[in-house]
Amino acid sequence: MDGEPGTETLPSLTEVRAAAARIAPYVHRTPVFTSRTLDEALAARVFFKCENLQKVGAFKARGAVHAVLCLGEEEAARGVLTHSSGNHAAALAYAASIRGIPCTAVMPETALPFKLAAVRAYGAQVVLCAPEERESACERWRERTGAAVIHPYEDPRVIAGQGTAALELLDEVPDLDVVVAPVGGGGLLAGTAIAVRAMRPRAEIIGAEPEAADDAFRSLASGVRQPPVPHPQTLADGLRTGLGALNFRILRDLDVRIVTVDEGAILDAARFHVERMKLVVEPSAAVALAAIRRIAHELRGRRVGIVVSGGNTDLSWLLRARGEQVLDRLE
Amino acid sequence: MDGEPGTETLPSLTEVRAAAARIAPYVHRTPVFTSRTLDEALAARVFFKCENLQKVGAFKARGAVHAVLCLGEEEAARGVLTHSSGNHAAALAYAASIRGIPCTAVMPETALPFKLAAVRAYGAQVVLCAPEERESACERWRERTGAAVIHPYEDPRVIAGQGTAALELLDEVPDLDVVVAPVGGGGLLAGTAIAVRAMRPRAEIIGAEPEAADDAFRSLASGVRQPPVPHPQTLADGLRTGLGALNFRILRDLDVRIVTVDEGAILDAARFHVERMKLVVEPSAAVALAAIRRIAHELRGRRVGIVVSGGNTDLSWLLRARGEQVLDRLE
Repeated sequence: MDGEPGTETLPSLTEVRAAAARIAPYVHRTPVFTSRTLDEALAARVFFKCENLQKVGAFKARGAVHAVLCLGEEEAARGVLTHSSGNHAAALAYAASIRGIPCTAVMPETALPFKLAAVRAYGAQVVLCAPEERESACERWRERTGAAVIHPYEDPRVIAGQGTAALELLDEVPDLDVVVAPVGGGGLLAGTAIAVRAMRPRAEIIGAEPEAADDAFRSLASGVRQPPVPHPQTLADGLRTGLGALNFRILRDLDVRIVTVDEGAILDAARFHVERMKLVVEPSAAVALAAIRRIAHELRGRRVGIVVSGGNTDLSWLLRARGEQVLDRLE
Repeated sequence: MDGEPGTETLPSLTEVRAAAARIAPYVHRTPVFTSRTLDEALAARVFFKCENLQKVGAFKARGAVHAVLCLGEEEAARGVLTHSSGNHAAALAYAASIRGIPCTAVMPETALPFKLAAVRAYGAQVVLCAPEERESACERWRERTGAAVIHPYEDPRVIAGQGTAALELLDEVPDLDVVVAPVGGGGLLAGTAIAVRAMRPRAEIIGAEPEAADDAFRSLASGVRQPPVPHPQTLADGLRTGLGALNFRILRDLDVRIVTVDEGAILDAARFHVERMKLVVEPSAAVALAAIRRIAHELRGRRVGIVVSGGNTDLSWLLRARGEQVLDRLE
C-alpha cells in the first residue's frame, strides 16, 4: 500500500467538506487561540487551531473517523486494522468504537506503555510484535480476519478527514495569508493543502519538518520523492515517518513549501506552548511554531494559521530541558 | 488592611457587571471546555472556565486590572504597590502597564525565579526582602512613594473583578446547578458567589480548599473566622493564604459551602487536566476538580461549572508524581 499511486482520485475540497459533515457528531470543533506575546515578537498575527484538544488528543481522530464511517456495512463488520505506534492507532480504536466494530492495532513491543494503554482504553485489541515485523504481522491479521486496513496517511478518506481542521480554521479566520502544518507521512499537510488551496488560492502553504527527518523537503526540492532518513533522531516522534507517495503528489501539485527546523528550535517552540500558552502539545506539533519563527522576517504584517497537531506526550522533553534545575527539585 | 471590615459597601452583581465592561478590552474572554471522559465518570456535565488561559495565566488579571482602572488620575500617577509572591504581583504589573503607571512589587527573596521574571517582564520594579518583612517593607514603600496599595483579595474592586469569570461562565452556560471555585484568601470565591447567587439564586456555590489549609472550612462551619494553618503543607501554593475578613463575610452571607480535599486528590486532578485535557493548570486550580470528584455522589445528573483559576506552574509536581519512571528517562 506504499507504492506509487495510480489512477485513484485525489480528494478535493468537495471531499473535505463531505468529510466535515460526516464526522461532525464525533469530533470536536477545536478552538482557535492567539498569543499577543508571540504576535508582538513576530509583528504578525498567528492563529493556532488546537487539535491537541481534539478527541484522542490529535487531529488523527478526524481522518480515522472519516475512513471508518466510509466503510460499507459488510466491510465494516469484519473490523478495521492498522499498524501504528502512535496517535493513529488510538484514533482508529476510537473510530471503531463509534460504529461498534472490532479494531486491531499491531503495535511494536517497544511502544510507550501510555500509548498502549490509550489504544486499549478505546476497546481495541493490541497485537504486539517486533518493531521490524509490523507490516508482516499486520498482513497476517488481515488475511486471517478480512479486516479493512486503514493506513495512517496514504488513504484519500483519511486525507479528506485531516483536511477538515484547516477547513474549520478558514471558516473562523478567512483571511489567512499563510497556513502551516507539520509533515511526517503527509496526511495532515495534504488535507490542509487541499482545503487551503481551494478556499484561499493565493495563500502560502507551508509544511514544517524536522531537519533530522527532512525527506519531504528534499522530495519537493528535487521533484522526486526521496527516501526517508533511516532512524531519524528527532524529538518530534510523530514526524519520523517518510512522506507517502500519494501525499507527495498532492503537495507537489498544490505548490506546498517545506521549512525545516533544528531540534533546539523544536524544543523552544514546545516550551512556548506549554509555559506561555498553557497548552500541552507534543513536540511534533511544536514544529510548526518553530518553522514560522525561522522565517519570521517573511511574515511581518501577515496573518498566519497553524494546525497544532496533537498533545499526546509525557512531557519528558520538558523535564530534560530543565535539566539540573529539575533534578534538584526532585531531591 | 486585614482587620474586620466596617461600613464599606460589599460589591453586588451591579459592580461585577460594571467591572466586566471596564476590563473587557484588557482581559481575555476565556473559553469553556468540557471532558466527555469526566462527564461519563461522574454522570454529570462539567464546564471548565479556563482562567489558566487568561492574561498573566490566572484570573488575578481581572481583579488587578479592575482595581487599577478604578483609580483616579492623581492617585494612579503615584503608582501602585503590592506584596505578593504569586500571580497577583504579575497581574498588578500587567494592570499598571495598561495605564502606564509605576508598579512596585515587594517580593520575598525566596520567590521562585520564574515568578520574579514574570513580574519584571511586565515592567514592574521588584523589591526583594526577607519573607517575614513583606508587610513592613511594603508599608515603607507606600510612605515613601504614596503609591496605592492594591491588596490581592481584601478589596471590593478586586473582588468585583474576580467575579467577572463566573459572570462570563453563566452567560455561556446559564443553567448551572453548581459552581465551584478554589478558596485561599477568598477573592475569587467571593466574587464568584456574588455573581452566581444573583444570577442563579438556587445554585449551590462551593469553595474548594486543601485539607492542609482548611481555615475557610472551619470558619464557615463555626460561623467565626478562624486563624489560618501556620505554614500549610500543600501542593496548592496559591491557597496557603488565610481567608480574608471581608471575603469571610461575603461567603457566609451568600451561603457558600466549602469542600476540602487531600493532597493525593489534588495531584490526581492536576494530572487529569494536563494528561487528559491537555491544559496546563497550577495545583491550586486543580483543587476544584478534586472537590467535585469527592462529592460525585451528590452531582449525578447535575450541571457543574468550575473556575479553573490559573496555569502558572513549573510542573515539578508532575515530575515528582512520575517519580522513578521519569528519573530513568532523564538518564
